Formats: sequence, C-alpha cells, structure tokens
Amino acid sequence: MENIITSDGYRFLKNAWYVAALSEEIVGEELFARTILSESVLFYRTLEGKPVAMSNRCPHRFAPLNIGKREGDTVTCHYHGLTFDAQGECTNNPHGNGKIPQACKLNTYAVEERDGFIWIWMGEQDKADPSKIMDCSCLTRNPDSAVAHTYMHNKCNYELVTDNIMDLSHIDHLHGPLINTNGKLSPLLPKVSEAGDNITVRWDWLADPAMLLFAQNLARPEDTANQFFEVVWHAPSNMQLTVGAVQDAEDYHQDGLVLYDFHIMTPESATTTHYFFASTRNYMMDDAAYNKAKMDGMIEAFTLEDKPVIEAQQREMGGIDLLGLNPVLLSSDAGGIRVRRKLRSMIEAESA
Amino acid sequence: MENIITSDGYRFLKNAWYVAALSEEIVGEELFARTILSESVLFYRTLEGKPVAMSNRCPHRFAPLNIGKREGDTVTCHYHGLTFDAQGECTNNPHGNGKIPQACKLNTYAVEERDGFIWIWMGEQDKADPSKIMDCSCLTRNPDSAVAHTYMHNKCNYELVTDNIMDLSHIDHLHGPLINTNGKLSPLLPKVSEAGDNITVRWDWLADPAMLLFAQNLARPEDTANQFFEVVWHAPSNMQLTVGAVQDAEDYHQDGLVLYDFHIMTPESATTTHYFFASTRNYMMDDAAYNKAKMDGMIEAFTLEDKPVIEAQQREMGGIDLLGLNPVLLSSDAGGIRVRRKLRSMIEAESA
Amino acid sequence: MENIITSDGYRFLKNAWYVAALSEEIVGEELFARTILSESVLFYRTLEGKPVAMSNRCPHRFAPLNIGKREGDTVTCHYHGLTFDAQGECTNNPHGNGKIPQACKLNTYAVEERDGFIWIWMGEQDKADPSKIMDCSCLTRNPDSAVAHTYMHNKCNYELVTDNIMDLSHIDHLHGPLINTNGKLSPLLPKVSEAGDNITVRWDWLADPAMLLFAQNLARPEDTANQFFEVVWHAPSNMQLTVGAVQDAEDYHQDGLVLYDFHIMTPESATTTHYFFASTRNYMMDDAAYNKAKMDGMIEAFTLEDKPVIEAQQREMGGIDLLGLNPVLLSSDAGGIRVRRKLRSMIEAESA
Repeated sequence: MENIITSDGYRFLKNAWYVAALSEEIVGEELFARTILSESVLFYRTLEGKPVAMSNRCPHRFAPLNIGKREGDTVTCHYHGLTFDAQGECTNNPHGNGKIPQACKLNTYAVEERDGFIWIWMGEQDKADPSKIMDCSCLTRNPDSAVAHTYMHNKCNYELVTDNIMDLSHIDHLHGPLINTNGKLSPLLPKVSEAGDNITVRWDWLADPAMLLFAQNLARPEDTANQFFEVVWHAPSNMQLTVGAVQDAEDYHQDGLVLYDFHIMTPESATTTHYFFASTRNYMMDDAAYNKAKMDGMIEAFTLEDKPVIEAQQREMGGIDLLGLNPVLLSSDAGGIRVRRKLRSMIEAESA
Repeated sequence: MENIITSDGYRFLKNAWYVAALSEEIVGEELFARTILSESVLFYRTLEGKPVAMSNRCPHRFAPLNIGKREGDTVTCHYHGLTFDAQGECTNNPHGNGKIPQACKLNTYAVEERDGFIWIWMGEQDKADPSKIMDCSCLTRNPDSAVAHTYMHNKCNYELVTDNIMDLSHIDHLHGPLINTNGKLSPLLPKVSEAGDNITVRWDWLADPAMLLFAQNLARPEDTANQFFEVVWHAPSNMQLTVGAVQDAEDYHQDGLVLYDFHIMTPESATTTHYFFASTRNYMMDDAAYNKAKMDGMIEAFTLEDKPVIEAQQREMGGIDLLGLNPVLLSSDAGGIRVRRKLRSMIEAESA
Repeated sequence: MENIITSDGYRFLKNAWYVAALSEEIVGEELFARTILSESVLFYRTLEGKPVAMSNRCPHRFAPLNIGKREGDTVTCHYHGLTFDAQGECTNNPHGNGKIPQACKLNTYAVEERDGFIWIWMGEQDKADPSKIMDCSCLTRNPDSAVAHTYMHNKCNYELVTDNIMDLSHIDHLHGPLINTNGKLSPLLPKVSEAGDNITVRWDWLADPAMLLFAQNLARPEDTANQFFEVVWHAPSNMQLTVGAVQDAEDYHQDGLVLYDFHIMTPESATTTHYFFASTRNYMMDDAAYNKAKMDGMIEAFTLEDKPVIEAQQREMGGIDLLGLNPVLLSSDAGGIRVRRKLRSMIEAESA
C-alpha cells in the first residue's frame, strides 16, 4: 500500500538531483560511504580532486568497498581483491586467468560539485542534466566569512522535513526569541505559485519589531520593519529560503538585511533523512565571528526545537504516510500540500 | 492470523474499563502521555482537578500534544499552535481567517478517578458506564497507612500477566519464603465459578504453618492456620485478589488476617503491559512502616521473581499467542484458561 | 520467497549433525541453553557426565527450563514445578491428582560428545546416525598442548561464514602478515571434488617464502616451500581445513608442518551464527605457550579481519540470500558455489 512508508513498495523520485554530501565531507584520498534512497554509495575524489560516486557493493560478494583499499584512482575490495576504477570498471581480477566477467562492474552515478555540495543523480544516468541543479551560487560568490554549511541526520521521512520548511508558520509557535515571528505568519495566506517544476511559497508582513536576529542589525531595532519569507521548492526536496527585513526602503536586497538559506533533504531510507543546510547573507559579510555564531544558533534551533517535534511526529505516525492519515489541513499548509501532491505525481509518472 | 500477536489483525477488547494511570501519576498542571491499546493518549487534570483524556496526536500534523503548552484547561500544540480544550474541541486556530475545520478535534475518552486509579474507556464512548468499574473502594475506606499503589512496566502480552494471577499455584514454586505456599496449592483443584462477566477462582487450604507474611502476625506463628486465595477477574484484565489466614475461628475478615490486593493489567501494545498494583489489609492498619515494607516486598517479589519468568515466556513464545502453541493444560489452569476463552469470545463478539 | 532469509519460509537442513557447544561449555550440574536452528535447546550433563539435549520450553507455559532447578538428572520448571528427566519425560506433576498429561514431555535431541564438541541432530531422531559425524579425532589423539577449541558468535547467515572458508583466496587479500598468502592463491584454479555428501576444495602452490606462521618453523624460513590448503565440507556447514608446508620433501604430514583445523558453523537463526573453531598440528606439539599464542592469533585474525567484512556483507545484502542477488562469480568461487547448490538441493529434498 502506497501509504505505508515501511513497505517494500515505497518509492523515491529517482530521476532527480540530490545532495549526497558536503564538499568538506569527501576529503583527500579517503573513501566515504553514505546510503542514499536506500542504496549504499561509495564516494571519493580522484587524484585530480573530482568527486565520483558508485555502488558501494562489490558485485562479487557484496562486501562494502569503502572498507577497501584506495590506490591512485582505484579501489580494491578488501575481501577478494577485485579492483575498480573511478568509472566503476573492474581493472583487475586477481582470480584464475584474470579474465574480468562482463557483469563485474559497479553502477556509477553522475555527480556534480557546486557551491560546497556534492550533488548526485540516482536515476537513469543519461537523463542527468547538471543544468537542472538548484542554483546555490550565492554561496560561492560571497566571502567565506559570510558562508556556512552543515549536515544533520534525522530519524524521520524526508517529506516531514520538507513540510517543516514549506510551512514556516511553525516559526510563530515552535522557536525561541531569536527567530520567532510572534504570531505574524499564521494569519497570513501564504502566496503559492508554481513555475515549471518549482513551487514557491511566500509570506510578507509588517513586523513590529523585526525578528530579533534582524532587529539587532537594523537602524531602529525596536521599530517596525517590512519582512518576507520566500521558499522555492525544487523537486524532490531541495529548498531555497530567502528571508528579508527592511526599514524605510523598498528593496530588501539593496537596502535591507537578507539571508539566503538552503534547506536540502536527501532520503537515506524511508524513515531517515540527511539534512543539508547552508546559509549566506548580504550584511556583515566580513564578520567571521558573527558568521559562526549565526550558524551555531541555527544548528541549535533545529536540533533543540525542530528535530524533536518532527521525529516525534514520525513516531506518532508509525509507518504511515501523512496523507494516509487524513490530516486536518490549515491555510498555512497550502505550499506544503501542493509540494506533496506534485512530488507524488512526479513519482507516479516516473514509475508508470 | 489470530494467534500472531504481532500481526496487524491483533485486537483488544475496546468496550471495557482499563486503568490508565495511578492518580499520583497525573499531577498539577502537567501533561502526561501514555500509550494504551496502542493508542497514544494525553492526560491532564483540569484546574478543578478532574482528569481528562484525549488523543495525544494533533489532528493537523500528528505532533504529540504532551510536548505542547498547557494554559488554563487548554493545550496548545507546540508545532503550529492549534489549541484544544478539555473536551477535545479546537478553540483556536491561529492560521488564516481562524476558521476551525470541522474535523479539527481530538477523540476524547471517558475517564473516572476512583480509589487512586484513573480508569479509561477506550471503545464506543456512549457505552462507558462507570457503574461497571471494578469496586476498589476498600482502598479509599482504609487509612493511608494501610494502603499502597504502584506501577510496573512489563515486556510481554497482558494475558501472560493475567495468567500469572489466575493461577496462583505458581507461588508454590516461584516465590521466596515470605509468601511461598510450600506446595500446598498445586494439589488442590481450584474452585472456579462464573457470575455475569466475572470469573472467580479460589483455593482453600490448611497451612502448616501459614505463609510467613501472615504467620508473623498470627497468635501462634508456628501452628496451623486456615488460608485462602480468591481471585475475581473482571474483563478484560482487572483482578481483585483476597488472601486470608485465620486460627481458631471461621470468619477471615473479622477474626483473621486479610489482604485485599488489586492486580490490574492494561495493554500498552500487543507485547508490552502496564501493571498496576494496589493493596490494603485488615490488620496493623496504622503501621505506616509495615505498610511501606510490605509494598516494597511485593514490588521486589514481582520484579525479581515473576517478571523475569513472564518476560522469558514471551521471548520463548515469540509472537505467537499461548493457545496457538497448544500448551499442555494442568488442573491449576482451570481459572486462567476460562478467562482466556471468555475474553476471546468477548473480543470476537465486539468485532462481529 | 526462498531468497528472503528473514521470511517465515526460510529453511535449514534438519537431518544433519551440528555442533551445539564445546564440551567445556557444558559443565558440572549447570543448565545451559542455546538457540539452534531457531529452536531453544536445553543442555546439561547427567550425573554420569553424559550430555543431553531437549527442548528448553516447558510444554505447559513455555517458560525456559534453563532458569529452572536441577536435581539429580531432572530439571524442574521454575514457574509451576513440572519435573522432567534426562529423556524429556515428565516425572512429576505437582498439580491436582498428579496425573501426567500424555503431551507433557519434551522433545529430545540425539547428542554425541566427541573430540571436545557436543554434536546435536535437529531432525527426525530415528535418522540420527553417529557414524555420520565429521571425524575430528585428531583433536583427541594429540596432546592437550597441541589442541585448542573456541567459540565465536556472528551476526550473519551461516552460509556467508561457510563461503569464507570454502574460498580461501580471501587470505591473499584480507589477512595480516602472519597468515597472508601474498596473492598466490587467487590465480589458482582450486581443485574441487565431490565424494558422497562431501565437497573438497584444494589449493597447492609454491610459496616464496612460506606463510609467516610456517616459515618461522621451517629449516630455511626465507626459502621457497610447497604449500597446500584443503577444505573438506560436510553438510550442512562443517569443514575440516588442512594446511601444510614442506621443504625438500614430498610428504607434508611426515616431513612438513601441518595444521588440522575445524571450522564449524551452526545457525542460531537465519541471520546469526555460532562459529566453532578447533585446531591441532603435527609440530611443536608439546609447546603449550605456542599453542595458546597460535589460538589467540587465530581468534584475533577472525575477530578483527574476517568477522567485520562478513557481517558488513550481511548488512549490505539486507535480508536477501547471496544467490538471490546474482553475484558475479569468480574462479575461486568454484568450491563455495558448489557447496551452496548442494546444500540447497539437500534442503529441498528434505522438505519435498
């Protein structure tokens, strides 16, 4: 049954770009393994520094290759010594006459490294078009002192974490004073729009005063400010969140304070999620101490506030999908539900 | 299959009173959650002190409400701020125009607080008749120095714990000297009788000497005494156990020593059980130190002697129900098997 | 589905001898329990020292008997006092009139103690023929200072551990310098032969120099030596491994250094395995310190080198059987695959 996420029939969107790792997680000549869409994947950088990804299962006896031996750009299985190159081809079979069986190769995955992320395409490899990767280039354009990336692991289905970002009205209720929106978001009807495969949800409001995070850096911290949240969802679960505040002007980006955040969820399994987060901004861009403090604050907020409630949701829901439980829908769900339906139809189209 | 307790088809008796908690577990303005018959239930006391019970799942996104915020007699979900009153009605939706969707309410459960227990009715609410709650009023009539309650958690199906009480011949074999019956019970044919939905099992014997627990308090500790055990089972798994000893007289209650115990099992899930135990007596009723020592002794006996063997039974049986394993039946099983069959037929009648 | 090892349909070969325990594990008057082929089995020695095996589940309420009480050659259930003798017959029922129900007995298993092992026959008891037990008598013929036994537990299906021994080419790749074969085995075509129900796989090679373990004890440690490995598999998963090295002679056993090892796997469940290992040799037979150091080295090699990769294989394979995953086969698999197919056909024949 479609709604049982723990059933064998549970499906992910395969033909899509997912973030597999932060650039900083795959370093030097180390072998790195991560399970993505329930597939065990091996990652490493070639000697030239280019990341590659392939099945982490030796096709002979299914020993994981990441406990094998790296030499040059090849990996040798620790168990019986088959060697594979960065294209997944077997380059040495030490057994018998050394002939390499035709099936003795590793599935490889297209990977693209951009802006601190390693992206991976899990589906049909000839459909992997890097131009479809979500644009995170602001992370690269800005100085290091204004950019930060992190990774968190969650014990829940990835769609629950997507829902969390698509419905930012939760900030009114769940979060501490630094980012709390004091009940301003919930009454709004979020503006939802669709363009191509993207779905955008946006809130604009007059904050009185601005979120504390911004107010500290505005000219008149205690005064009103215009604010907005905009989330652009890219299938399957990659979101850019822009947050702005401005006083006495109209252009947030030029005259106000703006955060450019990326909330990117990659399913590890049906019930666990890799959560990648990165952030940059248009103010205090040279202040590395502020940069670190802000990222530490975001990690703390997510870990202490979002994560416990999302994982508790999953436990309460057992193995059943949200829509299978007939949830009551509120106006703030407009974006999240549209995303769930869009994703569902994409998954169905893919497997049709 | 009926006999697989871990299957989805496993059923509990819904239209019945279960103990959900001790009175002392639900205190002040605290929110308390407990899973009962695999349903996650929220409990709290209104400001007037009356206990209430309702679904612990917010109907919006299924976040558990017990991590929410209590204000007056309402609870507000921590995630998106829906507020519910003590009748499970949504009293505030901070989203959009604030209109409350019709389905936005919590299932509530009838609860009754009596004699140190919070009882709950899990089935059709219009059938909840408090007059059917097992009478434990002796716990209230007696002074505090003669009354004690406790709660224990067990990793086994509740029927295995019921069996343990319905066949007290195990005391001959399993327990230490304080309550051991020295092989006197097993040879007896327990008297089993049925009245309405209750099943009673009784043993009478000439103890030589009495159980050590009693002997200490009899006129002639080393001499013979008349003794009895009587267990009255109320569906689904609530039992009153009366234990008496008397010398030179006929009326246990007037002339002898009698314990009035309550052994009450509430399924948490098919494989875990909430065990509530309370006890009072007709002797040394002002001795609070004796009262505490006796309860500590009972907890120790159950924890060190009964619980390990019952949980080991469950592990040996895997996920299969007792009767599905064709157990050898002995004369001492007369009460327990009758209870199992009665309960089975009640469950079948309910779901017919 | 046959290939899902965690399914209810997963079958073991029942009519076969398995090692249940080391002789040294069943001592004095102690009760010993071990799960074998997913059955909970009770073991003890009669007062005469003869090991016996029977169901560890009391047929009354399925309490495990190993937590019961041993008296003479009987065991009394801790829960309700049924007593069973060493033939599994109930000799005392303390309940009611004491009549023993016909079904009140324990399944017993044929056991044979030989050469430091307790063997058990899990299938039809009238087919248990001790003459079919693998000959390990060299363990008894040699002095204690040349013999050692051990037991290890593995979190994987037993066939994965069998594969490990049937394909010793892994020693070229997986192991440390003491037993590494420096790539000499993999290029060889192992000689596979079948005789009755046994399958033998053998490698002969010119080592240059010999495995370090042997080289230390050869006349010319740095010089070439003839070496061989021979594994004789007995169904279902009992293997004798003989390893030899010789210089300047033809007869390994008379002129060379030979190890006589036994690698014996007994399924605990479909996903866990009891691994019994014993070893003797034809050199330095009086050196108890060498004996201990060699066994410690083998345990360390298995625990640190084989076990991690085999258990990782199992995790990578999930609950699917090796052949269900269409592995690439190499020349070194010749013995192991033949064993898998033979065992599969024996299991199918048994359940036909």
